[in-house]
Amino acid sequence: MKLVRFDAGTGPEYGVVKGDGIVSLTKAQCPYGDLQAIFEAGDEALAALADCVASTHPHHRLDEVRLLAPVPRPGKYLAIGMNYRKHVDESERLGIERPKQQVWFNKQTTCIAGPYDEIDPGVTEKLDYEVELGVVIGKPAKGVSADAAASHIFGYLVANDVSARDWQFHSPTFTIGKSFDTHGPIGPWIVTRDEIDNPHALDLRCYVNGELRQSSNTSQMIHNIFEQIAYLSTAFTLESGDLIASGTPEGVGVAMEPPVFLQPGDVVRCEVAGVGAIENRVRESGGH
Amino acid sequence: MKLVRFDAGTGPEYGVVKGDGIVSLTKAQCPYGDLQAIFEAGDEALAALADCVASTHPHHRLDEVRLLAPVPRPGKYLAIGMNYRKHVDESERLGIERPKQQVWFNKQTTCIAGPYDEIDPGVTEKLDYEVELGVVIGKPAKGVSADAAASHIFGYLVANDVSARDWQFHSPTFTIGKSFDTHGPIGPWIVTRDEIDNPHALDLRCYVNGELRQSSNTSQMIHNIFEQIAYLSTAFTLESGDLIASGTPEGVGVAMEPPVFLQPGDVVRCEVAGVGAIENRVRESGGH
Repeated sequence: MKLVRFDAGTGPEYGVVKGDGIVSLTKAQCPYGDLQAIFEAGDEALAALADCVASTHPHHRLDEVRLLAPVPRPGKYLAIGMNYRKHVDESERLGIERPKQQVWFNKQTTCIAGPYDEIDPGVTEKLDYEVELGVVIGKPAKGVSADAAASHIFGYLVANDVSARDWQFHSPTFTIGKSFDTHGPIGPWIVTRDEIDNPHALDLRCYVNGELRQSSNTSQMIHNIFEQIAYLSTAFTLESGDLIASGTPEGVGVAMEPPVFLQPGDVVRCEVAGVGAIENRVRESGGH
Repeated sequence: MKLVRFDAGTGPEYGVVKGDGIVSLTKAQCPYGDLQAIFEAGDEALAALADCVASTHPHHRLDEVRLLAPVPRPGKYLAIGMNYRKHVDESERLGIERPKQQVWFNKQTTCIAGPYDEIDPGVTEKLDYEVELGVVIGKPAKGVSADAAASHIFGYLVANDVSARDWQFHSPTFTIGKSFDTHGPIGPWIVTRDEIDNPHALDLRCYVNGELRQSSNTSQMIHNIFEQIAYLSTAFTLESGDLIASGTPEGVGVAMEPPVFLQPGDVVRCEVAGVGAIENRVRESGGH
């Protein structure tokens, strides 16, 4: 199932994609009205929702509504750095130490933006893209083994871990440059776990103005998403709706020779096979 | 004014400290029923609240209720590292680079605990304390200058930035070792900004089992809290209720020679003059 958050002109609603339409959970009076309730209820909610959607004619056409970030304000948005082999190589050339363990940082939840929203460069002069497979937590996870981790995944989405490279390297923690407002576009929807046979065999690509910049496969992760959930949950609780960005492959702009950064008007398209695509334009100066 | 969140046996309530008692905002039917609404409304809310509290007899004695974390789940909990001169010196001896800019990391909001709650060591074998002055954001801040930053502060609290030193040094981002569940005790209340003449002239101390371990003054910060708010808000929006831990002074256990870590049963007391004190016991194994 594909779960969306959208605006058909009357404010945010939740829905399920059906063909080229959307069944609104509000309008259909389905048993679960918002995604947080669905994340928490899990498989039971999905079964009830599937029944409700099957018997309901779509209320909107997908191309008539504005799709919004499916999870606008999770409790956490964690991202792993240096998690694709060739990206570690290109990062090492830039002076980033080859990691001994999983390297995690936060994207502040205020940075989350919709799948087609504009990216505001803000004060950075080194704006860059990073396509990633995003993971949405379902059942809360604490002390979960890698073997058991899959059952704590609710679903997947596409994430662009937009990065202000000048500010990112102010400190080894990366915090300030990873969370500019609008620098966390996600979407276009959440694909539920049951629709993805193997999350570690998905092509992912990033295009800038139609030019292919990143092209890899989630099989190239160093720490797979089950190991990521196990590691994080050793320390703290992952809650329903928490987001994980599982790493970006090689091909980022800062590692090109010479480096190439995003410019106002550029269009960045991130896609993950079987999940979907998001497309975000860099705001022209003066735009709002 | 001192704003508290407490449990008098019937679940969390918000209140205002009056002498040795608490006026419950719920029971008094004051115009603002929870802290988030007060953070957003600002001075107007505080004035209305002061009137309401003045005419109301306290509903509970302070020593009869359990005080809870005043902000249980902020949008962000950001902490600055290496922000006291002598702590930078001791950290450098441990191999942490002397910072060029402000060094920020996140404490996951799931780590927040009450002012007298137990600290669960979890899987760490190197549990450590860090007393800090905590700042609660009032009016949202984006692109705010240091001169204007004070007006975006709602109030202050005491924070213990509990740290799992083994896990903290898994990576230069610190993320995993700073956010174990229960490793973010805060409180005992929020002291509103108007009660603190100068937040950069406050003694702060940490005791372990009554032994003084940290003793400094907020005047020793390298980047003061106004500069902190200015720096962060250049990149992203600080929202009402967001928390900032403004750095810890020298004297942490990991920097003692030889290092001394917290043990089950140890009691850590953190105090900031004019704000208050929190006291947290390290959980004995098997306890819950």
